[in-house]
Amino acid sequence: MKALEEKIIRDGLGLGTDVIKVDSFLNHQIEVPFLLELGQEFSRLFAGSGVNKILTMESSGIAVAFTTAMALDKTPVVFAKKGSTNTMDAEVYRQEVKSFTKGTTSTAWVAKKFLDPQDKVLVIDDFLAHGEAALSLVDIVRQAGATLCGVGVVIEKRFQGGGNRLRDEGIKLESLAIVEKIEDGVITFG
Amino acid sequence: MKALEEKIIRDGLGLGTDVIKVDSFLNHQIEVPFLLELGQEFSRLFAGSGVNKILTMESSGIAVAFTTAMALDKTPVVFAKKGSTNTMDAEVYRQEVKSFTKGTTSTAWVAKKFLDPQDKVLVIDDFLAHGEAALSLVDIVRQAGATLCGVGVVIEKRFQGGGNRLRDEGIKLESLAIVEKIEDGVITFG
Repeated sequence: MKALEEKIIRDGLGLGTDVIKVDSFLNHQIEVPFLLELGQEFSRLFAGSGVNKILTMESSGIAVAFTTAMALDKTPVVFAKKGSTNTMDAEVYRQEVKSFTKGTTSTAWVAKKFLDPQDKVLVIDDFLAHGEAALSLVDIVRQAGATLCGVGVVIEKRFQGGGNRLRDEGIKLESLAIVEKIEDGVITFG
Repeated sequence: MKALEEKIIRDGLGLGTDVIKVDSFLNHQIEVPFLLELGQEFSRLFAGSGVNKILTMESSGIAVAFTTAMALDKTPVVFAKKGSTNTMDAEVYRQEVKSFTKGTTSTAWVAKKFLDPQDKVLVIDDFLAHGEAALSLVDIVRQAGATLCGVGVVIEKRFQGGGNRLRDEGIKLESLAIVEKIEDGVITFG
């Protein structure tokens, strides 16, 4: 998506060889009109796949999952939660998820009542790096016996391998921008 | 907001004397059309106050902050983050926030570059209980020297006192539903 690549070049920041900061429009401050465009684009890419539910990971996936849902007939969004609370449902699907950015492992969970075998689920997230978050969401979809329509991510960092892990499993993956390399602050797209 | 009270009665769940679960439409699964209605209502309530930025807390505030922003001229949303990451900005506003639900204390932070003295900020959140989250966001607005236009919450649990803490400080507070009591699974509105 050309507009996204331009946006990343203009407003994003490449740090070291691994990190892209897009906190001015995507995952700290949210630019509403631009997020609406991203949702439209995911909607176009997954049109006709019968999506009736969108699954994302808190927190940074929520806004783009929401705009994608708006564009896909206002289908419900479910966001997987991390960690536990004292109001957590007894009946949950859960999966370990490692964050390379935060250097932590946590448990992602979704209450069973919000995913069932009739669901056709689109997984949406902001970043795809090593693939841990996306694969844990895919695993939760499978635990529910639901149909996975595909995975959509705003930014894939191809050099971290997560995209190929998903593609190797035969999962339909749509990345709105694919980053090949970050070097000396310069972000190169594939 | 009558439609919200009806929704809480129909789809929510009162647990013990303190907890309301609205995870089927607000803070785990998100019902997109209903969240758009909530955003419209906040927009109506804060129309004319010159809001140019919305501040919320990850994660459950993000969706309703987003729909409020959509209805308020697509103003940017900033969501405060909790805890730390290795990509955290050096320059942040930070404030301790206690969660009675989770039984934890964490640090909420916002990168300084996303709030400045010219901003007119509306704080939006899903719940107002003891007021810890809302007051920490208000504190961050003040640290930035920005103008606080008010605080909007979807559900205020009046008996937990947070609403009065805000009102006593002279803050304009708009709660779309005010819960007086939870008893034997029955939720009573004020």
